[in-house]
Amino acid sequence: MPLILGVDPGSLKTGFGIVNSVSGKLTYVASGVIRLNAKDALASRLKHIFESLNQIIEEYSPQQMAVEQVFLAKNPSSALKLGQARGAAIVAAGHYGLPVAEYEARKVKQSVVGTGAADKIQVQLMIQQLLKLSDTPQEDAADALAVAVCHAHSQQFEIQTARSLRFRRGRLV
Amino acid sequence: MPLILGVDPGSLKTGFGIVNSVSGKLTYVASGVIRLNAKDALASRLKHIFESLNQIIEEYSPQQMAVEQVFLAKNPSSALKLGQARGAAIVAAGHYGLPVAEYEARKVKQSVVGTGAADKIQVQLMIQQLLKLSDTPQEDAADALAVAVCHAHSQQFEIQTARSLRFRRGRLV
Repeated sequence: MPLILGVDPGSLKTGFGIVNSVSGKLTYVASGVIRLNAKDALASRLKHIFESLNQIIEEYSPQQMAVEQVFLAKNPSSALKLGQARGAAIVAAGHYGLPVAEYEARKVKQSVVGTGAADKIQVQLMIQQLLKLSDTPQEDAADALAVAVCHAHSQQFEIQTARSLRFRRGRLV
Repeated sequence: MPLILGVDPGSLKTGFGIVNSVSGKLTYVASGVIRLNAKDALASRLKHIFESLNQIIEEYSPQQMAVEQVFLAKNPSSALKLGQARGAAIVAAGHYGLPVAEYEARKVKQSVVGTGAADKIQVQLMIQQLLKLSDTPQEDAADALAVAVCHAHSQQFEIQTARSLRFRRGRLV
């Protein structure tokens, strides 16, 4: 399974995290936060997200991107800002031909912590444990790693389901 | 004054329009609508906006982009979708180093029709008249041309104001 780039877009901080998933075993590759300056013009902030992700994609060559799906944004103003950051991030994936998978926040937490009602700190601690990190990752980086881990688990689940289906249908494998 | 690219981003239709403004005289260069397929994945729709605007910028070499500023989006869901389309469009400008100017919808209508309360059809008809078009432009293309016209007017106003300031300060020109 290829490298997965998780992204947690935001208008001031965009987290990213890359994990490698081989036969269900996850390893940490890289993570960090793209920080935007609120005083900069919107165009230069969005350009910064786009170009930083371009650099990350060029450096690590992930083959897939995963982002959290947004169902209930707080209010129209924050939804617009989040949408712009998401747009800039998703365009970077499209620019390199990476497919983009979206997962509900509940599903990401369920996949990482075991419950969809987990809080931010639980996600950070579980990501540290799962990926054997020496430090607790920064919040946005942890969220980005979490959605990448969720995508890896989801793909692993699909592979296992396909195998068991083939088995049940009379050892067609 | 250089060519101005106006863009009216939307999650299903993104209008664009290019005008040339020489000493306050406006001429039409091009306009159209980038149509998105609602059935396509979000990533491929945003990529389509980004790449179409890239092509338009490469073909016409505008030096500035203008978009409508969004203050009051209808609801969080539509704000998120609009934000994503805006993000993809604004990133295209940033990719080519074009500065992006934003104008309130009221100011665009005021600049084109003469009243901030103008409706869509009035904007279409005034754009047709101002730019001497043989047909009424499609709604989204007209909105994109309108924000480009607003930007041209705004710059012309700044030049005139600067001149009169220099004059009043004692013929410093």
